[in-house]
Amino acid sequence: MNAPLPGHLLPEIRLRETPPALIDALKAHFGERCSTALAVREQHGRDESSFSVPPPAAVVFAESTADVSEAVRLCGAHEVPVIPFGVGSSLEGHLLAVEGGISIDLSRMNKVLSVDADDLLVTLQPGVTRKQLNEEIKHTGLFFPIDPGADATLGGMCATRASGTNAVRYGTMRENVLALEVVTASGEVIRTGTKARKSSAGYDLTRLMVGSEGTLGLITEVTLRLYPLPEAISAAICFFPSIEAAVRTTIQIIQLGIPIARVELIDGNTMRMVNQHAKLGLREEPLLLMEFHGSPASVKEQAESVQEIAAGEGGQAFEWASTPEERTRLWTARHNAYFAAVQSRPGCRAIATDTCVPISRLADALLESVEEVEASGLPYFLVGHVGDGNFHFGYLIDPNSSQERRIAEELNEKLVQRALRLGGTCTGEHGIGLHKMGFLVDEAGAGAVQMMRTIKQALDPKNILNPGKIFSL
Amino acid sequence: MNAPLPGHLLPEIRLRETPPALIDALKAHFGERCSTALAVREQHGRDESSFSVPPPAAVVFAESTADVSEAVRLCGAHEVPVIPFGVGSSLEGHLLAVEGGISIDLSRMNKVLSVDADDLLVTLQPGVTRKQLNEEIKHTGLFFPIDPGADATLGGMCATRASGTNAVRYGTMRENVLALEVVTASGEVIRTGTKARKSSAGYDLTRLMVGSEGTLGLITEVTLRLYPLPEAISAAICFFPSIEAAVRTTIQIIQLGIPIARVELIDGNTMRMVNQHAKLGLREEPLLLMEFHGSPASVKEQAESVQEIAAGEGGQAFEWASTPEERTRLWTARHNAYFAAVQSRPGCRAIATDTCVPISRLADALLESVEEVEASGLPYFLVGHVGDGNFHFGYLIDPNSSQERRIAEELNEKLVQRALRLGGTCTGEHGIGLHKMGFLVDEAGAGAVQMMRTIKQALDPKNILNPGKIFSL
Repeated sequence: MNAPLPGHLLPEIRLRETPPALIDALKAHFGERCSTALAVREQHGRDESSFSVPPPAAVVFAESTADVSEAVRLCGAHEVPVIPFGVGSSLEGHLLAVEGGISIDLSRMNKVLSVDADDLLVTLQPGVTRKQLNEEIKHTGLFFPIDPGADATLGGMCATRASGTNAVRYGTMRENVLALEVVTASGEVIRTGTKARKSSAGYDLTRLMVGSEGTLGLITEVTLRLYPLPEAISAAICFFPSIEAAVRTTIQIIQLGIPIARVELIDGNTMRMVNQHAKLGLREEPLLLMEFHGSPASVKEQAESVQEIAAGEGGQAFEWASTPEERTRLWTARHNAYFAAVQSRPGCRAIATDTCVPISRLADALLESVEEVEASGLPYFLVGHVGDGNFHFGYLIDPNSSQERRIAEELNEKLVQRALRLGGTCTGEHGIGLHKMGFLVDEAGAGAVQMMRTIKQALDPKNILNPGKIFSL
Repeated sequence: MNAPLPGHLLPEIRLRETPPALIDALKAHFGERCSTALAVREQHGRDESSFSVPPPAAVVFAESTADVSEAVRLCGAHEVPVIPFGVGSSLEGHLLAVEGGISIDLSRMNKVLSVDADDLLVTLQPGVTRKQLNEEIKHTGLFFPIDPGADATLGGMCATRASGTNAVRYGTMRENVLALEVVTASGEVIRTGTKARKSSAGYDLTRLMVGSEGTLGLITEVTLRLYPLPEAISAAICFFPSIEAAVRTTIQIIQLGIPIARVELIDGNTMRMVNQHAKLGLREEPLLLMEFHGSPASVKEQAESVQEIAAGEGGQAFEWASTPEERTRLWTARHNAYFAAVQSRPGCRAIATDTCVPISRLADALLESVEEVEASGLPYFLVGHVGDGNFHFGYLIDPNSSQERRIAEELNEKLVQRALRLGGTCTGEHGIGLHKMGFLVDEAGAGAVQMMRTIKQALDPKNILNPGKIFSL
């Protein structure tokens, strides 16, 4: 069981009553699709964060926009919170019922509704996961590049403005969501955006919803941009004498405008965990994993440029892969890093950081933080989407040790404040959730957060949409 | 003089009183930098739209964020509108004082504040124009690609979510603004975004402000993404037997994922005007103007692919240019199209349309609209950022003929409704302004527009920020 959330991180828990009349009304409408079974509620009352609060009062399994609308309408009538749920892969406590309420499970809304291959677009329900999407559209020769690691739902990825390993070339959910259908706090269904690639038609409600973490509406349909599967894909790994050398290589790649598709860092400490986990026998040194997409000639040209830059920084043991099998082998280290790290300390929880800085400041942001965690004695892993300036430490704490949790939070605090000083953000892709509300004020300033709060209060006057996340009211 | 705005297009004009006490207070604070001279007010009371309303009561020339804040604070105290002004290049009446009030001229806030070349970023004041920016950063080897044609200010380009000829490759202002400083309705100064390339830190206030047409805040500082000047640039023109053939060529280029930087259509009718204007002696047939950016090998590869596609659609008289001078010659036709068209009918005004559709529907959207304008007998021009599915008709009307204006508006109405049926938008890049409020409701739906209105009312309770634009309250 997780340790309770430390008081300084969680706004005072203000559980609202869920009137029996609401549960009755939900059961009357949804029948078996409204569950109050403890196991179901507990499964919907946690995520990949390290916090623990009481579960929601009930779970509604929505199968249509009309279901979502009706559930929100009923909850609104009783002023009871609604929390959208996809697969539960949030890292920041987004799914926790900190003010009580009803979890709306959207995982059954998992249909790809239409593929407009000629327009490089797909429209889908929010419960479709990214792997499912790419499997279902494989025959079209198109793909959706955003890959946050977890097989998250596209609705959840919208809600947290997710990105991941391909963002350096293809952007984040911010750039790749064209249109949404949203159920508002009153249960009304609205549409934002069109299938046109660009528009100047009024406020950008699409991007207001993307990243709003379920606090402004429940996403019930998503239109996304797709990309032609590259004619050629080539992957490479390269080891470096230091993190700094790997980072300097990355900076030069970006500054030269080389359209690299992925460039991921793993540090030597994490490579040791990966080796132990998967018996890969790789060097235990800082590593860049890279991927190049394009025509065969363009991929070759990109690869040559990068190899030259890496060699100048002492990069060694360059290994190339162009078949899918070889690429999978190279990427195994990256894909296993999280599990390898967590399994290196049985029973531990990982507290994941998510700072992102301007790329020129990446070495500054990373190296001092590595020194600090080394000095702390806490085991950790370090991986990074370094092409974007985004990296994650995972502090591997004993969840029953309040001292270790305190140390981890202190390390994160220093890391975030450093990133902010360097012009960066406290969260590149995980969102604010419960954990970073204080950091959001440090980053955006009280005035900007007050503007967010004003928007929230105007659009959700009863504060029923995933309350207690992003900011307190 | 322009014809008065037809009643059905303009919400009832509700001029608010400007109390003498406000003018006194502005003059006391700003001295000579607050002008009530009629010529100055008239210059700030019009733009490139074809409408005419009484000018603002005064013009304040702001030189700092503090100036803007103070002007907004004083106007707010008297509940008097404020209208930000850059160079006056809006096409949609954004700058017109339809409810009276004070124009805040930001053109003196025209400093490039910092260039972070290593991070491919620039921070500047809102009065910097796009040509000035590219001139000032030329030595860094970087450039800002968004090019709406007019030498607009970057503040104005943010406010209308501008794009233009390079958007097919580099995106629009939506994708290229990283951070803003904004003066809110209360005169408070807030910052949105950071210098990190991506972030999941709370609501995306940056993109809420981008495209808000001065109705949610006055932009006083902008951080933009820059791009390395391409190693190689190559331009080409190619003539086609029909608009449809040119459009089919464009669609294939996009669908194949060829990273073309620009692809612009000019129709044969407009080429005739261009020839008459500039004695270019070009074919009077539909034309694609294209530009390719990249490494020499990549540009060559893109060009070969495109030439093959164009040949398959009957493209002829391919002409290439790789030096700056040759490229300028090829692009002359495009750059002159607007002026050539307007000068083809002395005394006329152009009513510009701005629909944007999913690219697969581009031929449908264009061809029927060409038939309609041909049947109407109105002279017109047609140019398009066809790689984005965005195109502009300009109906060349006698501004004193209410009949011609009616015909033009009817043509636009049909064009917009067709674009909406095809999944598109009424405005790809010009904004809603005064002219498209009705279309916005048709496009977004009453619920989404009501959400915009709710946000506006929450953030600007006295309705002083450029009131009467986007929607009526």
